[in-house]
Amino acid sequence: MKKINVFLCIVILLSAGLYAQQKKMLSFPEPPRPKGQKNVLHLTAPPLDTVRIALIGLGDRGYSNFKRLLKIEGTKVIVLCDLLQDRIDSCQDVLREKNKPAAFEYTGVDGWKKACERSDVDLIYINTHWQLHTPIAVYAMEHGKHVAMEVPAGMSLDECWKLVNTAEKTRRHCMMLENCCYDFFEMATLHMAQQGVFGEVVHCEGAYIHDLRWLMFDEQKGYWDMWRLKYNAEHTGNPYPTHGVGPVAQILNIHRGDKMNSLVSVSTNQFGLTEYAKEKFGADSKYAKIPYKLGDMNTTVIRTEKGKTIMLQHDVTSPRPYSRIHKISGTKGYAEKYPQQNIALEPDGHKFMSREQTDSLLKIYEHPMWKELGERARKVGGHGGMDFIMNYRLIYCLRNGLPLDQDVYDAAEWSSIVYLSEQSVLNGSVPVKIPDFTRGDWNQLKGLTFAK
Amino acid sequence: MKKINVFLCIVILLSAGLYAQQKKMLSFPEPPRPKGQKNVLHLTAPPLDTVRIALIGLGDRGYSNFKRLLKIEGTKVIVLCDLLQDRIDSCQDVLREKNKPAAFEYTGVDGWKKACERSDVDLIYINTHWQLHTPIAVYAMEHGKHVAMEVPAGMSLDECWKLVNTAEKTRRHCMMLENCCYDFFEMATLHMAQQGVFGEVVHCEGAYIHDLRWLMFDEQKGYWDMWRLKYNAEHTGNPYPTHGVGPVAQILNIHRGDKMNSLVSVSTNQFGLTEYAKEKFGADSKYAKIPYKLGDMNTTVIRTEKGKTIMLQHDVTSPRPYSRIHKISGTKGYAEKYPQQNIALEPDGHKFMSREQTDSLLKIYEHPMWKELGERARKVGGHGGMDFIMNYRLIYCLRNGLPLDQDVYDAAEWSSIVYLSEQSVLNGSVPVKIPDFTRGDWNQLKGLTFAK
Repeated sequence: MKKINVFLCIVILLSAGLYAQQKKMLSFPEPPRPKGQKNVLHLTAPPLDTVRIALIGLGDRGYSNFKRLLKIEGTKVIVLCDLLQDRIDSCQDVLREKNKPAAFEYTGVDGWKKACERSDVDLIYINTHWQLHTPIAVYAMEHGKHVAMEVPAGMSLDECWKLVNTAEKTRRHCMMLENCCYDFFEMATLHMAQQGVFGEVVHCEGAYIHDLRWLMFDEQKGYWDMWRLKYNAEHTGNPYPTHGVGPVAQILNIHRGDKMNSLVSVSTNQFGLTEYAKEKFGADSKYAKIPYKLGDMNTTVIRTEKGKTIMLQHDVTSPRPYSRIHKISGTKGYAEKYPQQNIALEPDGHKFMSREQTDSLLKIYEHPMWKELGERARKVGGHGGMDFIMNYRLIYCLRNGLPLDQDVYDAAEWSSIVYLSEQSVLNGSVPVKIPDFTRGDWNQLKGLTFAK
Repeated sequence: MKKINVFLCIVILLSAGLYAQQKKMLSFPEPPRPKGQKNVLHLTAPPLDTVRIALIGLGDRGYSNFKRLLKIEGTKVIVLCDLLQDRIDSCQDVLREKNKPAAFEYTGVDGWKKACERSDVDLIYINTHWQLHTPIAVYAMEHGKHVAMEVPAGMSLDECWKLVNTAEKTRRHCMMLENCCYDFFEMATLHMAQQGVFGEVVHCEGAYIHDLRWLMFDEQKGYWDMWRLKYNAEHTGNPYPTHGVGPVAQILNIHRGDKMNSLVSVSTNQFGLTEYAKEKFGADSKYAKIPYKLGDMNTTVIRTEKGKTIMLQHDVTSPRPYSRIHKISGTKGYAEKYPQQNIALEPDGHKFMSREQTDSLLKIYEHPMWKELGERARKVGGHGGMDFIMNYRLIYCLRNGLPLDQDVYDAAEWSSIVYLSEQSVLNGSVPVKIPDFTRGDWNQLKGLTFAK
């Protein structure tokens, strides 16, 4: 009996030891793919002659996307949905000016559900605050609609898995609108990477460094119901990683030959919001007394299956010039975007090219998509044209029955960093496993392609 | 009996659980301070009219430091020590040209010991390869000599603790020669930080990004016995962190009001050395077949007691322009050095100053040390003058019986990242505790001062 107990102790001890080993990397349950369900890599859907759109969320971003969509052939705005009637009215005014039929209107907290339930809509286009993205997207797909949604797609792993599972089950498109993937320099460097100009790409960097203090604290002109400040008061880590990670994930062929395996994430304490609130509203104001959880600077480092790394940063509370960094370092060359577009290539990798050389190289490696659409994109505008190209591609692929440029795995992978970085920070910056949302299929596609 | 065993199991399980919790952060034994031994913060030693120097290691770096020391008043080179006689001869030639007395010569593997044992030497100045730094420094202090040593000071925690303990026991100066702390922009930004120009400094970055492939693979003109390639074949992590961390650690008042608590470190796989060796020597060459352990890019993030972060990088195998990054981000302003010196300050924190504004600000905040010594430093040269200022300050403080600018805790803290980053990488990027080499005294000094 004694022997058995000693044996039991040893077994328990060994298990605990193994557990400790595993604890080195924090991981979360990964739901198996339901039987009969298949991946949606290179998903296609029947071509649509006209894409009938329901726009949900008509704030700054929603309104500008609405206006851009009207400029693209083959679109029809069927539904306008927002909590605020005056936002809907502004859009109706635009439709009237352009001699287009008025759209159906939905408002109230459940307005988006009614929009998703309509049978005359093909695409639900989501521009709401972050926490409604997934609930609307899932409901839309379950009602047979394709989805285009603003970033980030999901704020938790649960939400990311819901998007993946719903897209796989319903065979509907679910594209997160990561517009920075369509910016000129990002696409040119993607093109260069795909042509081997950088050799083997080994390390990349991206960021969202954007001083949003005034916007977060502006009760009138700022975010609806101050949702961004509220979110940042309750969360740490990197809540907004996709502008930084999207373009470099494409360059590194994430889930198209490589995959993100793990991350570590480190946040500073919070200094900026409190200092700003004190100065703007006084030390005794309510805003100065909120214990904001978001650290001023978050640095996250991701490691991939093939041993590449991505360094990501987030800082929206410090007085710094805007930057998404966008660095690409390979065995044959290097590029960076901020504060200035710089490129260095072998055999002169130790120095940056001159302005003239850089410009002429960027002309040579201008992405075909920009060659085709650049002039029109610049005229329409929207962050220098990238928003137009993004919207154009979305509609083009839907109308031609082609796979979209970004699939639901991109949306889940890039957005999962919101939750995973926060978990790393809350646990002393431990390494955290990044789920394989393709569930084993990350090596099926060989590189990123844009369907034509 | 059964009950006792069950109880035992529970106890063991709980201990293992606690162990698992602790395992979240990897930590290493920190030897207690021997009884009667005191810290060496602001250590002073009797003033020396003439500083009698033994130079150990006369390669590229040793030779240039030797020549600079001759230009500083109150120095006398007593001993020249190297494994190679021709290096000693070159230095003797210089002494002869300058009508200075010939130095005593030591060669052979134990030459440095004999140099340390001489009674007519005050300062042992170490310019050897990395792995001899600590052995020589410890031996020198134990023989009553002050020590100035090239970076990094110690390659393991054991070496770092040996330096600290020996300096505390012998009350000798032990200064690691972190020359980048003396560069113009680094000192100007330190000065700005100390005047509060950046507000609360929240996040900093530093790096050693320097394409050394050709130098590491050059059997003739490269490092003696190819020591750097050999070290990098056997080690990962960040083997050369001090140029990046030194200047920002000074800005953050490390062990002068704050302290580094922990780090996480992530390395890419190795690509660059093998690819370079294959191209230069052929795929079948011995150099192409070495399984180099050093990842191309290492990213390390340090967190301090006060919740600030330092992002550090190391890459010596990729074709990239030289960079030490040197970014400082605070609640009132921001500065970065590479590839261009840029500053942004409130209320215009969202954009960089013009060239003219930057230049005029740097004139206002030029560090007093540069104001005093800059003209002479630029004339003597050595990385733009910083090497001269460093050597000048070392000799000045020794001659005036003043505390040195960098103490043995700086040397240990900054160098410990070599070992700690490697341990993090080897253990899947787990957080690693950074020892407090002051053993509780990190908050005694209030900020960094330069003795006058």
